[in-house]
Amino acid sequence: MTDRLHLGVIGAGRIGRVHAANLALGIPRATPLVVADVDASAARTCAREVGIPEAVHEVRAVIENATVDAVVICSPTDTHLAIIEAAAEAGKHVFCEKPIASTLEEIDRALVATSRAGVKLQVGFNRRFDASYRRIREAVERGQIGEPHLLHLVSRDPAPPPLDYVARSGGIFFDMTVHDFDMARFLVGAEVEEVFTMAAVRVDPAIGEAGDVDTAVVVLRFENGVIGTIDNSRRAVYGYDQRAEVFGSGGSAASGNQYPNTVVLSTAEAVGRDLPLNFFMERYAESYRAEMAAFVDAVLDDAPVPVGGHDGRMSVVIGMAARRSYDEGRPVRLDEVAEIVPPVW
Amino acid sequence: MTDRLHLGVIGAGRIGRVHAANLALGIPRATPLVVADVDASAARTCAREVGIPEAVHEVRAVIENATVDAVVICSPTDTHLAIIEAAAEAGKHVFCEKPIASTLEEIDRALVATSRAGVKLQVGFNRRFDASYRRIREAVERGQIGEPHLLHLVSRDPAPPPLDYVARSGGIFFDMTVHDFDMARFLVGAEVEEVFTMAAVRVDPAIGEAGDVDTAVVVLRFENGVIGTIDNSRRAVYGYDQRAEVFGSGGSAASGNQYPNTVVLSTAEAVGRDLPLNFFMERYAESYRAEMAAFVDAVLDDAPVPVGGHDGRMSVVIGMAARRSYDEGRPVRLDEVAEIVPPVW
Amino acid sequence: MTDRLHLGVIGAGRIGRVHAANLALGIPRATPLVVADVDASAARTCAREVGIPEAVHEVRAVIENATVDAVVICSPTDTHLAIIEAAAEAGKHVFCEKPIASTLEEIDRALVATSRAGVKLQVGFNRRFDASYRRIREAVERGQIGEPHLLHLVSRDPAPPPLDYVARSGGIFFDMTVHDFDMARFLVGAEVEEVFTMAAVRVDPAIGEAGDVDTAVVVLRFENGVIGTIDNSRRAVYGYDQRAEVFGSGGSAASGNQYPNTVVLSTAEAVGRDLPLNFFMERYAESYRAEMAAFVDAVLDDAPVPVGGHDGRMSVVIGMAARRSYDEGRPVRLDEVAEIVPPVW
Amino acid sequence: MTDRLHLGVIGAGRIGRVHAANLALGIPRATPLVVADVDASAARTCAREVGIPEAVHEVRAVIENATVDAVVICSPTDTHLAIIEAAAEAGKHVFCEKPIASTLEEIDRALVATSRAGVKLQVGFNRRFDASYRRIREAVERGQIGEPHLLHLVSRDPAPPPLDYVARSGGIFFDMTVHDFDMARFLVGAEVEEVFTMAAVRVDPAIGEAGDVDTAVVVLRFENGVIGTIDNSRRAVYGYDQRAEVFGSGGSAASGNQYPNTVVLSTAEAVGRDLPLNFFMERYAESYRAEMAAFVDAVLDDAPVPVGGHDGRMSVVIGMAARRSYDEGRPVRLDEVAEIVPPVW
Repeated sequence: MTDRLHLGVIGAGRIGRVHAANLALGIPRATPLVVADVDASAARTCAREVGIPEAVHEVRAVIENATVDAVVICSPTDTHLAIIEAAAEAGKHVFCEKPIASTLEEIDRALVATSRAGVKLQVGFNRRFDASYRRIREAVERGQIGEPHLLHLVSRDPAPPPLDYVARSGGIFFDMTVHDFDMARFLVGAEVEEVFTMAAVRVDPAIGEAGDVDTAVVVLRFENGVIGTIDNSRRAVYGYDQRAEVFGSGGSAASGNQYPNTVVLSTAEAVGRDLPLNFFMERYAESYRAEMAAFVDAVLDDAPVPVGGHDGRMSVVIGMAARRSYDEGRPVRLDEVAEIVPPVW
Repeated sequence: MTDRLHLGVIGAGRIGRVHAANLALGIPRATPLVVADVDASAARTCAREVGIPEAVHEVRAVIENATVDAVVICSPTDTHLAIIEAAAEAGKHVFCEKPIASTLEEIDRALVATSRAGVKLQVGFNRRFDASYRRIREAVERGQIGEPHLLHLVSRDPAPPPLDYVARSGGIFFDMTVHDFDMARFLVGAEVEEVFTMAAVRVDPAIGEAGDVDTAVVVLRFENGVIGTIDNSRRAVYGYDQRAEVFGSGGSAASGNQYPNTVVLSTAEAVGRDLPLNFFMERYAESYRAEMAAFVDAVLDDAPVPVGGHDGRMSVVIGMAARRSYDEGRPVRLDEVAEIVPPVW
Repeated sequence: MTDRLHLGVIGAGRIGRVHAANLALGIPRATPLVVADVDASAARTCAREVGIPEAVHEVRAVIENATVDAVVICSPTDTHLAIIEAAAEAGKHVFCEKPIASTLEEIDRALVATSRAGVKLQVGFNRRFDASYRRIREAVERGQIGEPHLLHLVSRDPAPPPLDYVARSGGIFFDMTVHDFDMARFLVGAEVEEVFTMAAVRVDPAIGEAGDVDTAVVVLRFENGVIGTIDNSRRAVYGYDQRAEVFGSGGSAASGNQYPNTVVLSTAEAVGRDLPLNFFMERYAESYRAEMAAFVDAVLDDAPVPVGGHDGRMSVVIGMAARRSYDEGRPVRLDEVAEIVPPVW
Repeated sequence: MTDRLHLGVIGAGRIGRVHAANLALGIPRATPLVVADVDASAARTCAREVGIPEAVHEVRAVIENATVDAVVICSPTDTHLAIIEAAAEAGKHVFCEKPIASTLEEIDRALVATSRAGVKLQVGFNRRFDASYRRIREAVERGQIGEPHLLHLVSRDPAPPPLDYVARSGGIFFDMTVHDFDMARFLVGAEVEEVFTMAAVRVDPAIGEAGDVDTAVVVLRFENGVIGTIDNSRRAVYGYDQRAEVFGSGGSAASGNQYPNTVVLSTAEAVGRDLPLNFFMERYAESYRAEMAAFVDAVLDDAPVPVGGHDGRMSVVIGMAARRSYDEGRPVRLDEVAEIVPPVW
């Protein structure tokens, strides 16, 4: 393998274009060779925008391209498993947007496929690469706050997604809180054992009619004794509210929101500032670049990926337990909903 | 009744002296006439310090003093009921430190006694009078954050109380979280229906050996659909951590900690400031004065007390449910642990 | 001398009542015996409010009272000198509100009188006792920011005083910036040598017609090489803006404004908070108590007063230089406007 | 002219590479065709890094390239004038790093050359494009703070530049405060008429030996009556300190520093956070991209450049007055040091 990684991007939608741009322009060790989309014109637009030499409309053309070392999967979730299996068989490393697949069974098949083929599988939990979350993790790792005791995550979206998205995604615990489940595991550095959910429909009755909730608190018990809370809403009118705190025997590390500027305006009415950033792609822009750079590094240096298949699986398992807790009105242990396997992947 | 309220203070310990000083020096409409303590020398010291004319060592001398309009009960909890009943019978209004009594049965007797006698009973939940909590409540009442959806309370003490105190108090849910239960009801403006507790012993194993926990998360479901979380620790090394947030359809109102000064120090190592206030009497000094002024006003103006017997009872009922939830590992409805009666008191 | 200081308060106006209340209620080592005011009813009201035994309408009754150890002068500035001289002759220590007198000649007579009589003279620069300013001074003294290089003071009033007050006071440099001149000397811990003023009438043309300015920047050169700026306005619509920063070789210490509560309100429009405190008596309430306690301690313990006659004199000298700089459009050395004498007082 | 601007970058040093990267990767309407550097290998490295097709070592090759519409001048200051004149003669638009030239006479020749040729000249005052400064300017323009009365700029570098740089640059007022002079004019939206400087050598005696100062306060009087202060130091040990406030009849708009993350760490020692960003290229990264995008837009849309030759000239004139004020110890009017001409350029 050379000192540059050659990649194919599969899916030229919103997130695919972000990854394509970062690979083409922001990561020196990466060279994207081809972008694929069933909509050939979307692929061509993406390729032209960022200077990728080839655009195709069949995934096969990427998988069969012998100069491609790794694929970045940004296509719809229901296509993930087949692409992962094909890529693994072709010996290509895989970066896959979350979730790996819609069911645990499919996720496990993806993990087996990549494991057997000896290719790397990184899952797209980009928030782990955000500077503020990383700083909290660093405080925990360096012992700056002692032994962690409590975790609190606030994760509120500026507005609910379209109703049909909610229907497809499996609901709030799988399309939104799933990020928080992963963040909780990342910040605490331990596995979750049990969850309890209290949730409601407060933002939009149509979400309830679709069988989902839009306002939720999930309490997590970790194997190391930490107790965590996740505070979710589908709609924070003031913007994208993304905060975290880990509290421990030696203190606390807490992050705040990000703003478009630092200006404080003081008038006869109030002392205030502009609203926080309210679009996840703006709030987390740098983290998308950093996660992809980390993937490229892991492959080129043959190092472990920072967010692997096990992480992708666990966040879904926690989501399943959170949903069951809500349905049954009781705390649910993770081993009630899935076999808990060690993180061999 | 004249335009000044004449009071007797019962108990000249730490909190008794605070109330005596506020009544003597900080509340124009109040005139404390007598202070009582079984330790006569403590009573005399308190009287001399703030200029109260009489010091006695028998509660009876206060109750039988015909010029005393109201009593302020700051003696140990196990003496509350008898004093309340005697005071009520003597037609004196009552301000009683929390908790009203140790058992629900005794609390109910106290409520019946004051109700039958037609005297007022205010309970010492001083935090309701803190400017920051009041401002959050005001935001909710004025609709500044729309319909409330979520509540989050952080309440962490700088250090655990002596072990024998924990044994007497009934534990964290009755001596510490009880303030948060009251605050939750105050901020949300609705009753709690169900609670779920996840807790642990992380600060000091001796607390666990005494049958209590020192680290706890309590989730509350309110009758109006709000979901709340309370985040407790017996020891925050950086000081007294007391914060609240109510989140709603129209935004969020959140309070921060209070500091001894506003200075930010920037050096080659960090940008920082001194630790928050870490003694509750300093943090909440003004709230003690304000609650007592409110009691005096309520009596003189014959208006409802701002924190009544029902409030004192409900916080204990929630504590009982929180403890049972911890013991049984399941959500517990309040009507499982007590008869829920309307707030006639 | 006993362990308690007996005081007479002269002047029962706004500031006199503050000092009377602090002496009567907030300072254990002080006992105010008498309050005097030419308006006898004002004196009586004040005495009754805080429990001072005697109210008189003649200053002489205070000076001749043999049990009075010290006087607190809160009468109009043009009465200060005569009272100070009489008090000094009677062997009474003096706390005098700023300014000591209207002219440098009178100030010097007051300093001579108290010095010869061997009584203490403290001047009412209360801001030195504010917790935030003290913390900056402490940072400088402890070397937390290294050698000081730069000072910046923001001092903006919520609204201009009545026009007749401006006429009487001598103008902004003598009734407002005088506090900042003292603060500058206090924070830096060195004397000012030269000043340059740039000023304008921006708030109210009537202030200009009265011969004064309402918006001013004064630059200070200190003998130890520090350069300071003072930023004044007679009207900050958002409240009382009182901030300071000292910057040095090892960092910076900067204070912010004080607010009535800590609540941050986030809505669809802005993230904001209530306006800062806007009344100086509220903002600086604790500092008034602390300065008086310090005076009482200095007398009882025969220690130097924390703010003496020299300090009162120097702030006026700097004000004279600042005004001349404005009039003549050039930097002015202090020794151009007054003889600079060492701080023997 | 097409819908894309073809540019040549002259100078492949630190700032040249930043502009080259932004033009190549971050500005859709721009296409850099060639990069030139006397060090041919530096030019080649830069070209390869960002994908610019051609690298040359002679400026002439850029000027004579008929497909180049505009040049971006990042070469040493003493080469600016010749390149500007050649580019203007060749009909190419010019973006020039500040300062335009070392002397006012040369600056005026550059302005005449571009003006006569009818080509645009933009000067590299990138800070105008920073989101926080822009927000303050917007507050002023929209009347959110009423009529501006006072301006305060804090501009402190993390460390002094190499001594030989100070010698070449003309000193602090020309290499550092020059940015603040431009920012002052930008934020206030008016011209400066008079300046007064108080300065000292506090950071490094060698700077003084080189004839410069390292700690300075400059007071500015604007033609619209605003009074401004600039607070400079060559070394803030805590990082790059870049703040601004404009205060007016309707309030205040103030910006703060930028931090690498939002995390607040609370321990038993302090409540603090990591140091602010301390490298100007990181702090102002986005502003470099935005200024270049604005230049490209101005040329393609034939609109006025946002920072023109007049701006580049005025900041140098103010620097000359500031230096003379320091040398002569008196306020200096701008028309004492240069002919003040209207902003025809």
